[in-house]
Amino acid sequence: MLVSCAAYQNGKKLADIGESEIHDYVSRPDCFVWVALRDPDRAKLDEMQQAFDLHPLAVEDARHGHQRPKIEEYGDSVFAVLHIIELDPSGALKLGELDLFVGRNYVLSVRTAAERGFQDVRARSEREPELLKHGSSFVLYALMDAAVDRYFPVLQALEAELEGIEEHIFAGLSPRRNLRALYALKQKLVTMKHAIAPLLEAMGKLHGGRVPQVCYNLRDYFRDISDHLVRLNQTIDSIRDMVITAISVNLSMITLEESKTMKQLAAYAALVAVPTLIAGVYGMNFQHMPELEWMFGYPVVLSLMAGIDFYLYYRLKKAKWL
Amino acid sequence: MLVSCAAYQNGKKLADIGESEIHDYVSRPDCFVWVALRDPDRAKLDEMQQAFDLHPLAVEDARHGHQRPKIEEYGDSVFAVLHIIELDPSGALKLGELDLFVGRNYVLSVRTAAERGFQDVRARSEREPELLKHGSSFVLYALMDAAVDRYFPVLQALEAELEGIEEHIFAGLSPRRNLRALYALKQKLVTMKHAIAPLLEAMGKLHGGRVPQVCYNLRDYFRDISDHLVRLNQTIDSIRDMVITAISVNLSMITLEESKTMKQLAAYAALVAVPTLIAGVYGMNFQHMPELEWMFGYPVVLSLMAGIDFYLYYRLKKAKWL
Amino acid sequence: MLVSCAAYQNGKKLADIGESEIHDYVSRPDCFVWVALRDPDRAKLDEMQQAFDLHPLAVEDARHGHQRPKIEEYGDSVFAVLHIIELDPSGALKLGELDLFVGRNYVLSVRTAAERGFQDVRARSEREPELLKHGSSFVLYALMDAAVDRYFPVLQALEAELEGIEEHIFAGLSPRRNLRALYALKQKLVTMKHAIAPLLEAMGKLHGGRVPQVCYNLRDYFRDISDHLVRLNQTIDSIRDMVITAISVNLSMITLEESKTMKQLAAYAALVAVPTLIAGVYGMNFQHMPELEWMFGYPVVLSLMAGIDFYLYYRLKKAKWL
Amino acid sequence: MLVSCAAYQNGKKLADIGESEIHDYVSRPDCFVWVALRDPDRAKLDEMQQAFDLHPLAVEDARHGHQRPKIEEYGDSVFAVLHIIELDPSGALKLGELDLFVGRNYVLSVRTAAERGFQDVRARSEREPELLKHGSSFVLYALMDAAVDRYFPVLQALEAELEGIEEHIFAGLSPRRNLRALYALKQKLVTMKHAIAPLLEAMGKLHGGRVPQVCYNLRDYFRDISDHLVRLNQTIDSIRDMVITAISVNLSMITLEESKTMKQLAAYAALVAVPTLIAGVYGMNFQHMPELEWMFGYPVVLSLMAGIDFYLYYRLKKAKWL
Amino acid sequence: MLVSCAAYQNGKKLADIGESEIHDYVSRPDCFVWVALRDPDRAKLDEMQQAFDLHPLAVEDARHGHQRPKIEEYGDSVFAVLHIIELDPSGALKLGELDLFVGRNYVLSVRTAAERGFQDVRARSEREPELLKHGSSFVLYALMDAAVDRYFPVLQALEAELEGIEEHIFAGLSPRRNLRALYALKQKLVTMKHAIAPLLEAMGKLHGGRVPQVCYNLRDYFRDISDHLVRLNQTIDSIRDMVITAISVNLSMITLEESKTMKQLAAYAALVAVPTLIAGVYGMNFQHMPELEWMFGYPVVLSLMAGIDFYLYYRLKKAKWL
Repeated sequence: MLVSCAAYQNGKKLADIGESEIHDYVSRPDCFVWVALRDPDRAKLDEMQQAFDLHPLAVEDARHGHQRPKIEEYGDSVFAVLHIIELDPSGALKLGELDLFVGRNYVLSVRTAAERGFQDVRARSEREPELLKHGSSFVLYALMDAAVDRYFPVLQALEAELEGIEEHIFAGLSPRRNLRALYALKQKLVTMKHAIAPLLEAMGKLHGGRVPQVCYNLRDYFRDISDHLVRLNQTIDSIRDMVITAISVNLSMITLEESKTMKQLAAYAALVAVPTLIAGVYGMNFQHMPELEWMFGYPVVLSLMAGIDFYLYYRLKKAKWL
Repeated sequence: MLVSCAAYQNGKKLADIGESEIHDYVSRPDCFVWVALRDPDRAKLDEMQQAFDLHPLAVEDARHGHQRPKIEEYGDSVFAVLHIIELDPSGALKLGELDLFVGRNYVLSVRTAAERGFQDVRARSEREPELLKHGSSFVLYALMDAAVDRYFPVLQALEAELEGIEEHIFAGLSPRRNLRALYALKQKLVTMKHAIAPLLEAMGKLHGGRVPQVCYNLRDYFRDISDHLVRLNQTIDSIRDMVITAISVNLSMITLEESKTMKQLAAYAALVAVPTLIAGVYGMNFQHMPELEWMFGYPVVLSLMAGIDFYLYYRLKKAKWL
Repeated sequence: MLVSCAAYQNGKKLADIGESEIHDYVSRPDCFVWVALRDPDRAKLDEMQQAFDLHPLAVEDARHGHQRPKIEEYGDSVFAVLHIIELDPSGALKLGELDLFVGRNYVLSVRTAAERGFQDVRARSEREPELLKHGSSFVLYALMDAAVDRYFPVLQALEAELEGIEEHIFAGLSPRRNLRALYALKQKLVTMKHAIAPLLEAMGKLHGGRVPQVCYNLRDYFRDISDHLVRLNQTIDSIRDMVITAISVNLSMITLEESKTMKQLAAYAALVAVPTLIAGVYGMNFQHMPELEWMFGYPVVLSLMAGIDFYLYYRLKKAKWL
Repeated sequence: MLVSCAAYQNGKKLADIGESEIHDYVSRPDCFVWVALRDPDRAKLDEMQQAFDLHPLAVEDARHGHQRPKIEEYGDSVFAVLHIIELDPSGALKLGELDLFVGRNYVLSVRTAAERGFQDVRARSEREPELLKHGSSFVLYALMDAAVDRYFPVLQALEAELEGIEEHIFAGLSPRRNLRALYALKQKLVTMKHAIAPLLEAMGKLHGGRVPQVCYNLRDYFRDISDHLVRLNQTIDSIRDMVITAISVNLSMITLEESKTMKQLAAYAALVAVPTLIAGVYGMNFQHMPELEWMFGYPVVLSLMAGIDFYLYYRLKKAKWL
Repeated sequence: MLVSCAAYQNGKKLADIGESEIHDYVSRPDCFVWVALRDPDRAKLDEMQQAFDLHPLAVEDARHGHQRPKIEEYGDSVFAVLHIIELDPSGALKLGELDLFVGRNYVLSVRTAAERGFQDVRARSEREPELLKHGSSFVLYALMDAAVDRYFPVLQALEAELEGIEEHIFAGLSPRRNLRALYALKQKLVTMKHAIAPLLEAMGKLHGGRVPQVCYNLRDYFRDISDHLVRLNQTIDSIRDMVITAISVNLSMITLEESKTMKQLAAYAALVAVPTLIAGVYGMNFQHMPELEWMFGYPVVLSLMAGIDFYLYYRLKKAKWL
């Protein structure tokens, strides 16, 4: 589906153009065309491949989807794949993809399986003609920057999730649910890591070493994206590390709870077993057991039982077994 | 065993040829011979060594088998070893090998201990004369690409296996079988890793730095294989990481189950021990125990026992000990 | 908020100057201006950006805060971000930031969310004109050195914290609190690591390889800071390693305690169960039980019970079950 | 002890020579001397140092023994240290050493603390004059290749050992012995690793980068040894990884067994406690307990006890507690 | 405190000289002065700084102490910091420091907080004029070699300590003390690692790449020290790895012991509970219980109890629960 298609010159939008006009504008010097597609079908992609003369391997990657994030040069053009990660209301992660084909005078962005679009990036870019003058490479920067910035709130949600679980753990609550939540959190971190780590690695190509011609003037800006990715990557590693620690702390808490249960079990057993022993003694059938004939033998023994239990209860309470 | 043997020129098949004709075709410029062997014996390999003038160390590697995946240059020719991993119906992994000898005008592929062949690669290549024009290096690409693509369904099967185990773990089912399955899964991942990681490392030689002459034109294509290998490698690492976490989560679940059992044990013990104490009290032989003489002493005490047990049961149920 | 603003020449302070005079002094050769801000608002930063012609990306980083530590070159100037970590009286870590903009003839330091200032650095620098002669790069060195040196007492406090927890662990005390403390300690180490590791990595730019012009003469001094950072980094890793070990040792101690509790439970159960059995035996209603008719049957049996319990107690004590 | 000493020219053995003749043959061009020593004393080594003009640091290393594997150049000559690992019949590893001094026209091999010699290498080399023509470097290759190939059966034995332990673990057998065996296996892997990892690292010097003059023609052969070492190294890492997993799986199995024991304990306790309660009820001394006077009260109650126990047994069996 | 001070020329000692004479000898070509200090105060260090024109940053490092091991060049001179680790009789590690300032014609060694001196190095050096001819760099080598060689016995003591703990673990003895010992051992390994790893890293500067002029001739000797450090480093890593494994094995042993205790508990409980049930049955008050009236009912029932217990004991013994 075509989201929008416009031509730009000298930092300003010339016109919204139809697909048939793309060829005209692409051939003009100093002008570039910015096309945004969403979940395109095969025919649409083939059309674009012809319009912009895209490399077949890159188009095939976009068609198949499920690529790992990467930035590749094909001759003078750059092909970038980014993951889009969106948070479900249920807290699950939804994985989409953003494929960017960038040449000297065109930008083609293909968004797949993602709710939220990048129209705001186009709008902001059009409000900053000074920067948009840099041409298609600025659009590449602006789109990548927006896509990367959207990882932050997702990661913050995962951090908040971990904090919630931590509270449950140290309160000794619902260890079973904690385990499941920690395991799910670790899986989400894997998803985030798969989005960010390869992109970080690839990003170096756009600001260090031999930078593609088309991106050269904006090296400092691409370095800034790299910087955000490093921070995201480091945060993922830290959360991951704390999740592993939390799993082992949770096991310790479970063992502690078990230990406490065992003490309670022992304590209550004692409170019952001792009076049972006494009752057993006075249930013996000896002919000569003077207590049995006492007038107040029975209440005395009952009091003895209660007294011993009170004392035991006090001692066990003090020793924190109860 | 000879699977097939044909000569190609300018992207098109010239003819299926006999082994005796190999020498003729190999000496023609612009022509290359593609021979496919399956589980060959020593004599057949020696024959091929002579026909194509292969390096003795490479031939010896192919003869012995059980090599680690690698890509080596011997003069102008390239020798590549890939693992073939096939899934048994039982879920076990079967390890085969694909050895590729590639020179300017020949390709020799040797498949060992693998069910499924690569005839489909030959068929598809012959339908794409544009690409097959690149000569023997394209055949190298096509065979490696096919071999690498076959790792994906195997890895997906392992991912599905892990998901199955996860469900069992969190349902608290069959912890013993889960352990065995996780351990076996880890071993399979080791097998996959041994197939993929060394190949990924070796692959760099075909698209970065000093690329062998024979592969130079297809660098972008070999980079594409590298990309698939990176993705496979990353997925293996993630599954492996989750398997380790799952083992520790499984231990936590076992401990939790044990803890729950202990609470049930304690609860049921209490339900029996308290009435036993009461019965013990009224089994004492004191001469003066007024209750014993009451008309309804016995049913009152039985009701007392039942009442206490109902109350305990209610409390223990509420505290989730039962 | 402006903390101070002064101009220096040839290692000596010329004058405290007003913000309006900055432009005059910055344009003089051999003279540099040192401005210190604290928690500045947007307007103040914009003013400074104009006064010193700072790069917009750097100013934006300073405005947003929460950057990872880094050292970046923008043309001839250097932009450095450091974390400031301060210890709460409660033992919590408070995270602030120090942003340094350094050009040939100016230093702008921006401190955010940190209690303690760097006036002492200015005072000491003014007492060492020999070194201050090196110009703005020496101020950069002096401020970074001071900021890095302040990590040491924080790390020592964390080391002391770990030692306190270790004592509790091996004394078998408060395992629950130990767990929580170890977990919190690990989180603090993550905070420290995030402050130190990226800075260490960035620091290399100031003493190895292509050093920015402005810092060239002080390479040995920046190497010294690197050295301190390596030491801090190594110490963090060691503490982190010991924390993980301590968590697993703590689990072992909990399991040991549980094991000991189980032995005590068993021991006390035995002390009650055996006399209960004996009482049960003499509660049987056989017509022919000679002991029942003995004159001293009852006291003999009571003594027997006591005797057996004494013996059991002695044996269990010796076996360390009690 | 001198094992053998011979001179070679043009791939053929000239003669077995005495130690006094070494000097004559070493000075002839195109000829090289191959001396094999076993557990030599200090005097013998000094003699050889003089005969071949060896570097004092290398000789001292050979004298002291217990070096880590390495390959060092001293001027034109190469000094290599390899570990020899032999399997005791008891399964223990015996560590020996092979020191190789190689110059343009001599090879001195010193074997220490190892049972099996390298006479077979000499015999095979003499049967391959084509290769032996390469001179002393081929002998270096042949000896290193033989030494490295001997690691494979040792490692296979360790793999078999792990498999044996795995079977015990999953059968729930002898967890104590499994632990000891896994721990010992891990120690053996450390020994193997110390033999192989440093050698692998050093090996690069003989086939990549600046290769010593004496080894230049055989680069492809030394690369082959490297390849074997990479495979060995990878296998060690995998076994090590599985040993760690096996230890944690073993712990899970122990906890599972404990859990099962606890359930059995609870089940059997229930089978005894319930009839005991019933017996207690009918041991009460109420005057009005109609059942007591029934003719068949006693057998009815006994049957009740048995019936309840049968039912409990059936339920517990079904719930897999028994 | 001045330990000794002497001048050397051409590999021979010229004279023990006073501190005031240092200046004379340092200015002579072909002559070098070797000064050894122990725990010097500030004044003494300042004196030396003037005598040898040392770099202020290096002197400050020596004054402060607690540096991480390093080797730094200041112009033509080399500054090296090594840790000295000595074993307390109690098994604790004592950390000292050795600071070496080496220029073309002087060596200043500063030993801090270490018992054992390096006089033996001076004595041996004076007995080897051939090597001492290399000048101050040979003294640097000899001192570093001696300092590094002293790490070996310390590490062997730690290895012996681990072996002692292992024996305790597998004998099931004193798990609590084992934990404490393993934890302490891990801390000692951290101390060793901090001494060795940074030195190993720094050592490369003295034999690979751009070696300082003063050390150039002795590259092979410095490589030998590197080699020792690699071995030490590898051994530390292996011990550390085994300590972690030992902690987890110890936990498994504790859980095993607990499991065994639980079985014993269950077994003894059974031995008491079953006779108690029987006694309870014959304590019931039914009017019609034929056994009660039998002449030998009582002894028969006692025998029955004993018989059942013997049988149970035999079965439990066989099942290894007792």
